[in-house]
Amino acid sequence: MTLAATGGLERLSLNTATCKRLDLAGCVDAAARAGLGAIGPWRDRVHEVGVERAARLIRDAGLRVSTLCRGGFLTASDDTARRDALDDNRRAIDEAATLGTRELVMVVGGLPSAFGRLGLAMTPGDAGDKDLVGARQRVADRIAELVPYAAERGVRLALEPMHPLFAADRGVLQTLEQALDLAAPFPADVVGVVADTYHVWWDPRCREQIARAGREGRLASYQVCDWVLPLAPEPLNSRGLMGDGYIDFPTITSWVTDAGYAGDVEVEIFNEQLWALPGDEIVDRIAERYRDLVAPRLG
Amino acid sequence: MTLAATGGLERLSLNTATCKRLDLAGCVDAAARAGLGAIGPWRDRVHEVGVERAARLIRDAGLRVSTLCRGGFLTASDDTARRDALDDNRRAIDEAATLGTRELVMVVGGLPSAFGRLGLAMTPGDAGDKDLVGARQRVADRIAELVPYAAERGVRLALEPMHPLFAADRGVLQTLEQALDLAAPFPADVVGVVADTYHVWWDPRCREQIARAGREGRLASYQVCDWVLPLAPEPLNSRGLMGDGYIDFPTITSWVTDAGYAGDVEVEIFNEQLWALPGDEIVDRIAERYRDLVAPRLG
Repeated sequence: MTLAATGGLERLSLNTATCKRLDLAGCVDAAARAGLGAIGPWRDRVHEVGVERAARLIRDAGLRVSTLCRGGFLTASDDTARRDALDDNRRAIDEAATLGTRELVMVVGGLPSAFGRLGLAMTPGDAGDKDLVGARQRVADRIAELVPYAAERGVRLALEPMHPLFAADRGVLQTLEQALDLAAPFPADVVGVVADTYHVWWDPRCREQIARAGREGRLASYQVCDWVLPLAPEPLNSRGLMGDGYIDFPTITSWVTDAGYAGDVEVEIFNEQLWALPGDEIVDRIAERYRDLVAPRLG
Repeated sequence: MTLAATGGLERLSLNTATCKRLDLAGCVDAAARAGLGAIGPWRDRVHEVGVERAARLIRDAGLRVSTLCRGGFLTASDDTARRDALDDNRRAIDEAATLGTRELVMVVGGLPSAFGRLGLAMTPGDAGDKDLVGARQRVADRIAELVPYAAERGVRLALEPMHPLFAADRGVLQTLEQALDLAAPFPADVVGVVADTYHVWWDPRCREQIARAGREGRLASYQVCDWVLPLAPEPLNSRGLMGDGYIDFPTITSWVTDAGYAGDVEVEIFNEQLWALPGDEIVDRIAERYRDLVAPRLG
């Protein structure tokens, strides 16, 4: 029996990275079969079928698009890379609009000296560039450049603070406070923040800044997955099923509810063991943990 | 040639964990030969020779003790473990006093549910205890219990915020701000904070909180080592030689100098490749990077 029969999954959203072996149609089918309300597609899965067709495929299954993952990578210091990144982000904004989601998740990018780690092009000056303060300023400057384009299309740039584990190579935004400070000059419906438990659970200001995000109308997405130890050989793939690690989901979920968040709860788990399972089983396991640890505090 | 001849290493301190294969006498010799001004011993190395003899050995070599590493592990929720931890910390305070250092580094401990990872005893209630807020409160309560004992012996509890990578299993203090807030009720000469680049480099409030630590007279130790990627299979041993990773040492060092810090700069690197080298070579490499990246900004 799938969990579809038991209901209560209207706010649960399946991020496509959680079912890495499924294409978009496979993810949509698995989510819809289990009674989930939404899906959070990555752009690669969308591009495989084309944006228009992806939008139709999701809509026809009766699912919402909780977020589009992802824009960002805005930290390059040379002009060509800056222009390329802005162009790519404008395309991502267009795709989000076509898919009918307001929230474009932004992973802002790391230090130029770490670009090579993710296969990004490096200029001669990048190798020695460890200027974290400067990289963060470039993110702020480029968000400002993207805001008018996003505003015109009804899309919100949802800044995702990343666990400090990823500060060097993936994202120089580390805390909700920092993301909210960066968002502050812009309208709340154009620049928001993502609260992903994996990235924010350790933060001494987590509760306070989730409340602030709610107050300021900027809480764009609540994402759940667990901090498990030991880390996987590729730490990016260390994310675990809720309940398998050390995060206190009932507590953090109650903070999100208290902040007035009424949107989807997206599950994005990079985990080799989980990926090895059939899609329906992945979704069933997620649904079970969601019911136990998250849904009771959603209010 | 060792670097002893070239001087300028008066403020450099060798943490004994950096030369894992050497005993205390070996570390002392290597540090003194290279012209370093201080040593930062771990308690296991001290216990091997006895505290009185360790104190004499270090003093006779003309070295200071920058810090004693380490007290802490204060997060257990049952009474027996609480009493044992307080007893052990009182012994650590006595040892620091005997060694003639004012600074006892405190690694405060992780969540009860993660105790098993470090081989710590677990009670039946611990397995499900993921209450990070509660664990942090216990640290505050137990620091308060230790303060009178430390004050009488002229020893300062130097709280070490740890990279969020270690929030679950090693230390529930993540930021300098959090450590300074915890220290605030107590005299500045009894509770201080450690700024270890590995643990604080990513923090958006790093500069501001280093300045605050200086203003409040609580900056007890400045420690340097680099954030390198990929992480080692055991992430604890991922710490790298300054310059091998992504940390901007000149900038952070200038923040520390601007905060009025005039103490020792301790190098604590857990790294299998470094450990494999002869002790004198380890110290020479450290001295070289210290001269290039740290010393010029020490003022």
